[in-house]
Amino acid sequence: MNYLEEKILTDGKIINEDILKVDSFLNHQIDPKTIRETAKLIVSRFPKADKVLTIETSGIVIAYAVSELMGDIPVVFAKKSKSAINDGSNVYTAEIKSFTRNTVSTVTVDRRFISEGENILIVDDFLAEGNAALGLIDIVKQGKGNVIGMSAAIEKFFQGGHEKIEAMGIPVYCPASIKGFKDKKVIF
Amino acid sequence: MNYLEEKILTDGKIINEDILKVDSFLNHQIDPKTIRETAKLIVSRFPKADKVLTIETSGIVIAYAVSELMGDIPVVFAKKSKSAINDGSNVYTAEIKSFTRNTVSTVTVDRRFISEGENILIVDDFLAEGNAALGLIDIVKQGKGNVIGMSAAIEKFFQGGHEKIEAMGIPVYCPASIKGFKDKKVIF
Repeated sequence: MNYLEEKILTDGKIINEDILKVDSFLNHQIDPKTIRETAKLIVSRFPKADKVLTIETSGIVIAYAVSELMGDIPVVFAKKSKSAINDGSNVYTAEIKSFTRNTVSTVTVDRRFISEGENILIVDDFLAEGNAALGLIDIVKQGKGNVIGMSAAIEKFFQGGHEKIEAMGIPVYCPASIKGFKDKKVIF
Repeated sequence: MNYLEEKILTDGKIINEDILKVDSFLNHQIDPKTIRETAKLIVSRFPKADKVLTIETSGIVIAYAVSELMGDIPVVFAKKSKSAINDGSNVYTAEIKSFTRNTVSTVTVDRRFISEGENILIVDDFLAEGNAALGLIDIVKQGKGNVIGMSAAIEKFFQGGHEKIEAMGIPVYCPASIKGFKDKKVIF
């Protein structure tokens, strides 16, 4: 059992049959050691990329830690709302449905930050139905980049995202792969 | 001139007399070296804390890098919107006006993540009028924590946030302190 899996067992909370709450160490309060150990696992599977692409908010620190281990490659995070600074004309966009929030949001990446032929690793905190990942993959394609893999810290394998992305020929690796919840316990 | 100041001069873009765009290295695409060098400067001024508090989105990586240098203390980020997971009853809240977006948003921190007597360093990407920082200070006070200092990577000193916070007895340090923009150039 790896560091992240142990942390989930000790500090994660199962809210219902679909939702695991990890806000004490991953997506509200952050435990730096858990982030770093998770990044090490991701880099052991995907050792090399030109860029890490993630989406705000909780994927960003993991993407940053991955980048540090890869020798400080650039990290880009897709934005969920438009700033007054950005007039919207120079961005790639995708529509993403949020599983936990039950909303659809438009995410954007400035065209300057995806280049043709760039090898891009997609990183996030959670992989469930795969909607965020599919949106990011679409954005990379719009910029003619090459998605070399997708890694979320935690996946709920039973929600189908993993298989959907692999069916597109993109390798998927998640350090904590949850097969299901049984009697309020996590089954890896 | 420090690493961040040099980066601002080479890669920052002045949009108008109020707005400096740093999205190629700080708040859309992230340059890990700039983050780490900035964190080193912050820790040289504030070497010790029990916790780092920031606000989503762009402050999080800086807060994380600061935490690593302080020995992996917990990082907490205030959230700008409520997740379906959180019913709102167990959070501290503050209203924050965004300078660049011209909006008012409610930010929340779960009560579990601010403890009485905890020494908390507030970290963010930008300090301008100080609205985000004042909201975070208010949240720490609600939790009876102790704000030991406020550090933003970049401050627009002329917009008054720095002086407002120091007047409350809280030390402020920003590695890149901008006095103004003149002829489309940054004056530190």
